[in-house]
Formats: sequence, C-alpha cells, structure tokens
Amino acid sequence: MPTDANEQSVGLVTPITHHFEHDFELACGKILAGYDLVYETYGELNSERSNAILICHALSGNHHAAGFHSFDDKRPGWFDHYIGPGKPIDTNRFFVVALNNIGGCSGSTGPQSINPATGKRWGADFPGLRVRDWVKSQAELSDLLGIDVWAAIVGGSLGGMQALRWSLEYPERLKHCVVIASAMKLSAQNIAFNEVARKAIMSDPAFHDGNYLEHDTLPRDGLALARMVGHITYLSDEVLGSKFGRELRSGSFKMGQDEGVEFQIQSYLNYQGESFSGAFDANSYIRMTQALDFFDLAREYDNDPVAAFENAQCDFFAVSFTTDWRFSPERSQEMVQALMAAQKKISYVEIESKLGHDAFLLPNARYQEVFAAYMNRVHKSIKRKR
Amino acid sequence: MPTDANEQSVGLVTPITHHFEHDFELACGKILAGYDLVYETYGELNSERSNAILICHALSGNHHAAGFHSFDDKRPGWFDHYIGPGKPIDTNRFFVVALNNIGGCSGSTGPQSINPATGKRWGADFPGLRVRDWVKSQAELSDLLGIDVWAAIVGGSLGGMQALRWSLEYPERLKHCVVIASAMKLSAQNIAFNEVARKAIMSDPAFHDGNYLEHDTLPRDGLALARMVGHITYLSDEVLGSKFGRELRSGSFKMGQDEGVEFQIQSYLNYQGESFSGAFDANSYIRMTQALDFFDLAREYDNDPVAAFENAQCDFFAVSFTTDWRFSPERSQEMVQALMAAQKKISYVEIESKLGHDAFLLPNARYQEVFAAYMNRVHKSIKRKR
Repeated sequence: MPTDANEQSVGLVTPITHHFEHDFELACGKILAGYDLVYETYGELNSERSNAILICHALSGNHHAAGFHSFDDKRPGWFDHYIGPGKPIDTNRFFVVALNNIGGCSGSTGPQSINPATGKRWGADFPGLRVRDWVKSQAELSDLLGIDVWAAIVGGSLGGMQALRWSLEYPERLKHCVVIASAMKLSAQNIAFNEVARKAIMSDPAFHDGNYLEHDTLPRDGLALARMVGHITYLSDEVLGSKFGRELRSGSFKMGQDEGVEFQIQSYLNYQGESFSGAFDANSYIRMTQALDFFDLAREYDNDPVAAFENAQCDFFAVSFTTDWRFSPERSQEMVQALMAAQKKISYVEIESKLGHDAFLLPNARYQEVFAAYMNRVHKSIKRKR
Repeated sequence: MPTDANEQSVGLVTPITHHFEHDFELACGKILAGYDLVYETYGELNSERSNAILICHALSGNHHAAGFHSFDDKRPGWFDHYIGPGKPIDTNRFFVVALNNIGGCSGSTGPQSINPATGKRWGADFPGLRVRDWVKSQAELSDLLGIDVWAAIVGGSLGGMQALRWSLEYPERLKHCVVIASAMKLSAQNIAFNEVARKAIMSDPAFHDGNYLEHDTLPRDGLALARMVGHITYLSDEVLGSKFGRELRSGSFKMGQDEGVEFQIQSYLNYQGESFSGAFDANSYIRMTQALDFFDLAREYDNDPVAAFENAQCDFFAVSFTTDWRFSPERSQEMVQALMAAQKKISYVEIESKLGHDAFLLPNARYQEVFAAYMNRVHKSIKRKR
C-alpha cells in the first residue's frame, strides 16, 4: 500500500469467506452441496440498511475491488479508481459489497474447490454457469448481510450483465442498476474471440482435459494466449498505437540484423500473458467466457428486450466508451432504446476515451464526473426515503 | 471445374516451376544457393511485351490466382473474381503472371524445401524474409519472362505492400501500381494479432522449434488457432453477425441442457482452422507474418512517405473497404495523402462493403466497376504507346 494512498483509499481490507450450507441448484440443473463465497465490504451499512451498493465483477475480476490487502500490496483492488472516500462510489456514504463469483478462482467455490461427492478437485467437471447463477448466489449473500434492497448494483462488462439480470430477476431488490461498458448479449465476433481463447487453453497439452491440477501442471501457454487475445481486444487500436507504435524492444531494423528483433508490443503482450497465466485458473476462464457467450437478456422474452425490461422497477444508468469495440456504444444504445421503449428511467452517457474496453476500469475525468453525479442521485434518493 | 465456369474463366491452368541457378542474397544477408519459383500465366503476352500484369499474393495466397487445375477442382484460384475474360483484369487484353513467393509452401523455395547445405529440409532455419526479397525475386522472374516493364503490378493486403515496394525499388519497371486493402505499415494492433498467431504455432508442442517435419508431425492445433484469429480479424463484426448471429449449431439454450451447446460461429471457426492447418505450412506462416510486421515503406526515408514516393514513376490506384478494420480506409488515406504530396497520379476509392478485409477477394459490384474502369485506363495507356 503506497503511503500516499490513504486519503482517497479505503485502506487495508480483509476478505471474508462465508460457507452456505444448503444445496444450491444451478441453471444447468446440477446442484452444489453447499458453496463458499468470498467477499469484501467497504464503508458502513446505515441503520436503515438502505445504503448498500453491490459490485459485480467482470471476466478476470474478483472480490477485491478496492483498497489493499497488506502494506506490501503494490496495487489496489480492480475498481479502486471509483470506490473510496470522496470517489464516485463514496465509502463515506455507501456500504459497498464486492464478491468473487461462483466458478471463480479467488476463494469462492469453483473448479479448484473440492467436489464433496468425489473428494477431489472439481477441475473440468465443475458445472457450466449462467449469469443468473451468480445473481442468485448474490441474492443469498444479500440475505446473509440483511440487505433487502440494494441502493445500486454496479457492474462493468460481464459485471454489467449481472446488474441487468438482477433488474429482471429481483426487480424489487434494487433501486438503481449501473451498467458500464456492457451489452444485452454478445455479438458473433465476441463469441468468436472467446472461442479462440478457450481453444487456446484446451489445445495446451498441459490442460489434460481440464484435470491439470491432478497432473500437477498448468496450461500456462494456452492461458497466456487466451489472455493475449483478450488484452488486444480490450484495448483500442489507438491506444496500442500511441503506447507502443512500431517501437522495438530489442534488435535493429537494419537489413541483415533481423535476429532477435522484437517489437515492444510483442514483449508487452507476452509479459501480460505469462503473468496472468500464473495467477488465474484456466477452468474458471473457460466457465466465465461460456457464461458471457450464453448471456442473452431477452431470449426468454421472445427476443424482445422491451418485454424483458417491462418488470424492472429500478432506474438505470448506462455508460459506454467511444473506442470500446468489444462492447461498443451501439450495444449500450440498443439497451437504452429498449429501456426507453419500456418506459424506464434511463440515463446514458458515452464517454470519450482512447482506451477501448479497459476504459471502464481506468481514470477518466468525464467518466469520474458523470459517475459521481449519478451516485449523488442514488445517495439523495436514499435520504429522501428516510 | 464447374461446367458453367467457362465463359468468364481462364479455364484449366498449369503451374510452371523455374529453378534459378544463381545465388540469391536476401535482405537479411543470408544466401539461397539457387531457388525455385512456381508461377502461372493467363492470357497472351503481346508482341511489344507491354501488356503484362503481375499479381502479388497476400498472407496465405499463392501462384494459383485464377482458373482451375483440373476438372475435379471445385474452387478456382484466389483472385478468380477479378481475373479472366471480361473481368477487371481482362485476360483477353492482358498477360497475367501470378507466382508463389519465396518462403511460401506451394512450390516455391521455402521452409519445406531442402537446404542444399545440409541435405535436410530448411524448417525453422529458413532465413527471415522482407517484402523486398519477394520484389527482387519477382524482378528476376520478370527478366526470365522478358518483361522489362509491367503494365501494372496488382496486390491486396500483403500483396499491396509488394506492389508499393516495386514502385520504389524498380520505378522504371511498372506503369501502374494497384494497391488494394493495404497500408504503408502495420499498426501495433496488427502486429499484436500476428504475435498471437505466431505464439499459438510456437506453443504447440508438435512445433518442435520449427522442425516438425523431421519429427513426422504438424503443429495443427497451433496453426488452426492462428488461422482462427486471422479469420475473425479479416472479417467484420457486421458480417459475422449477419452470417452467424447467435445461432446454435447443436444443443439447446434451454436451462439444464448446456451440454454440447455450440454456436454456429464456433463450429465454423474450428472448421476453418482445421482445414487450413492441414494445407498450410506453419513455418511459412511465421515467415510471412514477420515480413508483414517488418514492412515499413518510409522507414529508410526518415519515416517520410512523401520522400519515399519521390522516385516513383508509375500511376497509383488504391482501394479500401469501409468495414476493413485491419487495413482500414484510414491507412489507405494516409498513403493517398503522401502520394498527392509527392505529386504522383493517384486514384483512390473507398468501397462500401460489409465483409471486412476479405472484401478485397470477394464479389462486389462497385469494386468490380471501378477496378474494371482503372484497368481500362491501364489498357488504353498500352495502346497509346504503340
């Protein structure tokens, strides 16, 4: 934890693990005989229990959304730019809950957990997941924490899909739905990139059909490749160009000196891939991307998103970023159109950014400003209720 | 060959292989002690030898640009939509030459050839290539065929880079330079995708550091992955969406029936990857993508493309496609700007298409029309000279 991090940081935080004893039926029909959720909280729950904000994570995120786990920690939680005292999700006002989803690899029940039926790790046998499974487990966490109604549920990317699913499944349990850089469903191109990522993992001979832990190995190359594809597509062409251009890391462009030539972008990508592949679980990556592919908000409503949103009771806030080409502004606009047609309250802003999809995690003055303004509104609506 | 293919087809064609006996020095300084080029020709060379058109191929192309190799052939050459009697590159008027580049895997000297120094296949030891190496070998082929001046040199994508390099290296040897869906250099994002492709190949344990043929195996999974990435990025989001959308090939979206669910886009990509990996050489793919990455038209001219084009003597025709995001219209526009600033004759058209980068190979009425119009001009300039 940097010494200058204190003022706008939630500071040191400690994850909590809760074991739910009861059976948990997944959308696929399979049953988890009990499950763990690991979560963190920031700020204080007010006496009316009305100031709680739920943070849903994206593909490679987890429960550690803000603050630091120790004084040695160099990097704060993944959404630290937007959660903390005086930040848009102001921990002086709100009680913030962030969890690791089922199927993840940061402490909640997932492929690395022991399957009680066999006494071995789940590995590839961990059941397939849908976004609704996460939302259902998050509802059980809400019950545990005594939160009947969330002041807001906030998510970016795959996290935004969870927030959207909440608004349909538990319409009376949230006041505001904040959907950042997300979509009502993936495009064929998105599914295609996810397929490449999964194929890269599964082609790695160290994958052993998903039972790599039993073989005491990890599909590092495959997971690194998957991450490289993700990394390229979550950034914009523009930011890659301005960050790396055609600069060399080693070697020379001079004719006759081709050996060992490496562009900076190559070594950067390889570094990103390798560090990720040591830190994330391949089976989790597969399950998460499958949930992404399957999510289709309006499928059960005859593919009519207006009909899907009919039951929603919350207000909506949507944010998109100009250079995000995996969750493009068009996808957010479609959602906004459907919400308006369903006569819901929806605020939408498209933020100018060069950073592609990753912009939703990174500092940006305008994003900061409109996010803070919306969260102010959320806060005011809490106060009015009292 | 389909029976109805005759009228606008060059019909049956037979590749010719020529062995060049002399040493060929590559840009990297290494020497090929003789080399083979395989090529095809369509149409007749006129007595003035002034109606010859050179076709340069892209990443996975070869010498088979038009017509059929046998009556059993189901698919014609890769540029058959645009080469043939009455087509834009009209074989009633032009003598068309298409070759497989050095480093390829369709018959010209490449990684699968025997290294005369060792008596074994080159494999991974095949020297690194630059676009200029191809252009130099194409100039030797021109000498062989007695073509002092090409009426036009035509290329798309990586082929366009060869046409551009010709205009700088042998300015007096071409009258027209046709550059389709190409660029003066790759962006960092392009290099990044190529790096993923190479990494996928090299991570495949069957790659054996490039010496897979000696191990009697092929890095099929790696090459399939590389092709999948290429395929996604050479198509537009739009065309993937309209072609596949979120349609399933197998299984059902119904809850509890997740097993075996596959989107059509997944099976399509897997099919594309697998069929390519049986037909193309992995080392060739690596060498070709490296040449792509290295190409930088203006690098030796202080990064000033205007200075680079100063010596060019030919007229230029550039084409781009609206949804091509790997060789976007912006890249063509930069080239056009530089050519105008260098006071060259340049015609440029941006074609409306939903097909992404692959549009340059596919039927398109407007593209057909402007391409034919330009080639008419090329033909008229030949006649005027007589």
